[in-house]
Amino acid sequence: MRPYELTLADASAAIAAGELSPVELTTSVLDRIEAVDGHLNAYVTVAADAALHTAAQAERDIAAGGYRGPLHGIPMALKDLIDAAGLPTGAGSRVRAGHLATADATVTARLRDAGAVLLGKTHTHEFAYGLITPQTRNAWDAGRVAGGSSGGSAVAVASGTAAFALGTDTGGSIRVPSALNGVVGLKPTYDLLPRHGVVPLSWSLDHVGPITRTVRDAQYVLTALTGTRPAPPGPRDATAGAAGLRVGVPRNYYFDHVTPEVETAVRAAITHLRELGAVLVDVDIPMTAYVHATHWGLMVPEATAYHEPSLRSSAHLYGPDVRTLLEAGRCVPAGDYLRAQRARTLMRAAWGRLFDEVDVIAAPTVPMTAVRTGQEVVEWPDGSTETVPDAYVRLSAPANLTGMPSLSLPVGLDAAGLPIGMQLIGAPLAETMLLRMGHAYEETREAPSTGDAIPLR
Amino acid sequence: MRPYELTLADASAAIAAGELSPVELTTSVLDRIEAVDGHLNAYVTVAADAALHTAAQAERDIAAGGYRGPLHGIPMALKDLIDAAGLPTGAGSRVRAGHLATADATVTARLRDAGAVLLGKTHTHEFAYGLITPQTRNAWDAGRVAGGSSGGSAVAVASGTAAFALGTDTGGSIRVPSALNGVVGLKPTYDLLPRHGVVPLSWSLDHVGPITRTVRDAQYVLTALTGTRPAPPGPRDATAGAAGLRVGVPRNYYFDHVTPEVETAVRAAITHLRELGAVLVDVDIPMTAYVHATHWGLMVPEATAYHEPSLRSSAHLYGPDVRTLLEAGRCVPAGDYLRAQRARTLMRAAWGRLFDEVDVIAAPTVPMTAVRTGQEVVEWPDGSTETVPDAYVRLSAPANLTGMPSLSLPVGLDAAGLPIGMQLIGAPLAETMLLRMGHAYEETREAPSTGDAIPLR
Repeated sequence: MRPYELTLADASAAIAAGELSPVELTTSVLDRIEAVDGHLNAYVTVAADAALHTAAQAERDIAAGGYRGPLHGIPMALKDLIDAAGLPTGAGSRVRAGHLATADATVTARLRDAGAVLLGKTHTHEFAYGLITPQTRNAWDAGRVAGGSSGGSAVAVASGTAAFALGTDTGGSIRVPSALNGVVGLKPTYDLLPRHGVVPLSWSLDHVGPITRTVRDAQYVLTALTGTRPAPPGPRDATAGAAGLRVGVPRNYYFDHVTPEVETAVRAAITHLRELGAVLVDVDIPMTAYVHATHWGLMVPEATAYHEPSLRSSAHLYGPDVRTLLEAGRCVPAGDYLRAQRARTLMRAAWGRLFDEVDVIAAPTVPMTAVRTGQEVVEWPDGSTETVPDAYVRLSAPANLTGMPSLSLPVGLDAAGLPIGMQLIGAPLAETMLLRMGHAYEETREAPSTGDAIPLR
Repeated sequence: MRPYELTLADASAAIAAGELSPVELTTSVLDRIEAVDGHLNAYVTVAADAALHTAAQAERDIAAGGYRGPLHGIPMALKDLIDAAGLPTGAGSRVRAGHLATADATVTARLRDAGAVLLGKTHTHEFAYGLITPQTRNAWDAGRVAGGSSGGSAVAVASGTAAFALGTDTGGSIRVPSALNGVVGLKPTYDLLPRHGVVPLSWSLDHVGPITRTVRDAQYVLTALTGTRPAPPGPRDATAGAAGLRVGVPRNYYFDHVTPEVETAVRAAITHLRELGAVLVDVDIPMTAYVHATHWGLMVPEATAYHEPSLRSSAHLYGPDVRTLLEAGRCVPAGDYLRAQRARTLMRAAWGRLFDEVDVIAAPTVPMTAVRTGQEVVEWPDGSTETVPDAYVRLSAPANLTGMPSLSLPVGLDAAGLPIGMQLIGAPLAETMLLRMGHAYEETREAPSTGDAIPLR
C-alpha cells in the first residue's frame, strides 16, 4: 500500500512507530496530486514547497523526541474559505482576486499546532453558496458532480490527495460532498469549533468540520480541533460503540423522495447497527414542513448582509447563480427573517425532546447519489420535481437549523458504483457518541465498499 | 407621616417591628388611591378587596411568626403589561379587550412569594410602544406628561398610591417616567429578570425592573426578584458606596441637546459623587451615531413580528401612533435588521471596553423635564428639532442596546418645580455597585428635593 492510500490513523501509527517519515508521506501525497488532480481539480492552490518544508521540520522534531500527537506530519487540505497565513483565500470567487490571508483561521492554527502539514486549498462552490462545486469532478465518476460546497475537500480526501481536510457546512456542505465521494464528514455542534478566520455564508448556520476517510480519522481531527485529548476509539470499542444505544429510525421525511438504492443501503446499515446491539426506535421527525422556508429565511438575508458592500461595488464579478441569490436577499422583509428565527427556536426545542427518546437518528445524508454534471432537476416517481441543490440540502439542513451534530459515513455503492452516505444525528455535544457508533459500524461492516478504498487507483 | 408616605424600607421596618400592620398600610394606600388617582389616573385596575385580603393574610402570617422578609405586607402595583392571575392584562390597548391572565408572570409570582400585596395594574403607553402614557398625568404637574411607557407605575410610586411598582424598559420605559416623576427606576442587566408572562415589545431589548421612591427600596425589590439575599445597604454603606470608584463623565452625547437646568443638576450630582470619594474620569462614548438607527432597526421589526397576527385581524383597534409604527415595521428589509444586530454587537463590545476604564457612567436620564401634554416637538438652541419621544429615548436607549444596567435617580427640581433624573450605567451585572453608589448619593445629598417627598400632598 502506497503511503497516500493510508488512512490518517494508519499513517499516524506508522509515523509514531518510525516506520514512515512525514516527508515520505507528504511526497507520496504530492505525487498523487500530480498524478490525478489535473483531472479531478480538487485543489485551487497547492503549496508543495511549504508542505515539504513543514514535513521536513516535523521529521526533525519527531526524531528529536518532540512528537506532538496523531496529526504530527499528516498532510491536510483546507477548503478555500478558511484562512491560512500566506495563502490567498479565494472562496471560489473572482470577487476575492488578489486576496492574501495574513493570519491563520483559529482552526488552521490549531491543526498546525498539532503538527499537521498544510498541502494547499481546495475548491469551494463560490462563497459556499451552492451544492455542486462546478470546478471539481467527482472522485468516483468524472462525469458527475463533486457535491458541495466543500467539494474540493471531499474529492481530495476520497482520491488520496490529502489524508484529511476541513470543510464548512451551512446546509450540508461538509456532509453532501462526503456522501457523494464515499468519505466521512462531520458537522459538529454549532459553535463547538470557532469560525474566526473562515469566510461566512450565514453566521447562524455555519459550521467548520473535518472530512476524512474513516470515522476513526474524524475522531483524531476533532480531538485536535477542540484541543481535548480523549483516547481515540480503539478496536475494543468497535462493538461497544452501538450496544444498548437507541437509534431513532424516522417514520417521516428522511425516507421520503429518496432513491430505492439509497433507502436500501441506509436501512441495511441501520439493521447492522441493530446487530451490533443498538435498539431501533421508530420516531416522528417534528416540524419538517418548516425546514425549507426556515433554512432559506435565515441563510439568504444573512448571506446578503455579509456580501452587501462588495455586491454594491462588484456585483458583476459574482457567478450568475450566486449573484441572483445575493441580490434576491435584499428583498427579504425583516419579518420573514424573524419568523425564521422563531421557527428555528421551536424546531430546536422539538428536536431536543426527540433526544429524550433516542440517542441518535439514523437517516440518509442525501436522497440520491452524485448526479451527472449539468443535471439541474430531479424527478421523483410521484411526478414531483425538485432542483438538484434543493434535493441535496433537504436531509442535511435540519442539523444546521437545530445546531445538532451530524456525522455522514459511507454505507455502500449503488448499481452505478457511486457511494451512498448515511448520517447519524445526535443531541448537542454528542460527537463522541456519534463517532463511536460510526466507528463500530465501519469496523464491522461485511464488505468495506468505500471509505477504505481510493477510487481511480 | 401617614403610612402611604413611607418608603418601602421604612414601611418594612415598621411592619417587622410590629409598629405597622399590612392592613393599616394597605388601607392607607387604597385611601390615597381613592383620594388622588381619579385625578392622576395611574391605575387601570385596582383590586382593592383582593389587596385587603392579601394584607390580612400577611398580617396573620407575620403574627404567627411567618415573616417572609422586607416585602411582606408591602403594597405594590404592576404595569399592565405584566400578567397577574385573575386580572386582565390590558397592555393599554383595545386589542386586548376581554383578556384575563390565568397565571402570574414569573416576576409577579416571585413578588407574591416574597409577601408583597398586589394593589392593581397601572397604565402603560399602548403595548409599551411610546414614551408618553397619555392616559396618566404627571404626579408633579397635571398639565404635563407622565412619561412612558411605564407612566402609570412611576406616577403611582411618586404619588404614594403604591410603595413600589414594576415597569418594563425597551428604550427607557422604566427610567424616563421615573425621571419625569422624581422616583427611582432600575433597568437591570438584560436577561437578569425573566420576561415570562410579560407582553413583549421587542424581545432583544425588553427588560423588567422596579420603580421605587428611593434607591434603597430598589435594592429590596431587586433582591426579591432575583431570589438572592444580599444584605440591603445600610447607613454604614452610605459613604462607602462611592469611595474609590471611577465615575465616567461623558465628553460627548449625554450632555448634547440637554436643557441647561438638567445639565447643571446632573453635573452637581456628579460633583457630589466626587465629594463622596469617587474619582471622575472623562470618557468618550463610542458609536453614538448608531444609537438611533440601531435601536429602531431592532425594535420596529421585532414589535411588528409579535403583533402581525392581530395586526392582520384587528389593525383598526390599535391607536393611530402605534398602528403606524407596527405597519411601518412590515417594510423593514431583513438586511436593515441584520445591520442593526451587527451594530449592536459592536456597540456592546465597545461599551465593554469603556468599563475597563471606569466603574460607572453618570449622565442625565432624559434631556429635559416633563413637557406639557400635547407638546410633540422640542426645539434646541442650535435650531434643530426633535420629536418628544425621540428626545426622551435618546439617552436611555444605549443601555437597552448594550444590555447594561442603568439606574435612574432624582437629583433635583428645575425652576418649574419638575424633577430631574440622573442615570448611573454599569457593566453587566453591576447592579449592586450601582445601587450602593445611588444609595450613597441619596443618603448624603444636601436637600432631599424629591424621592422622599410625595407631590400633591
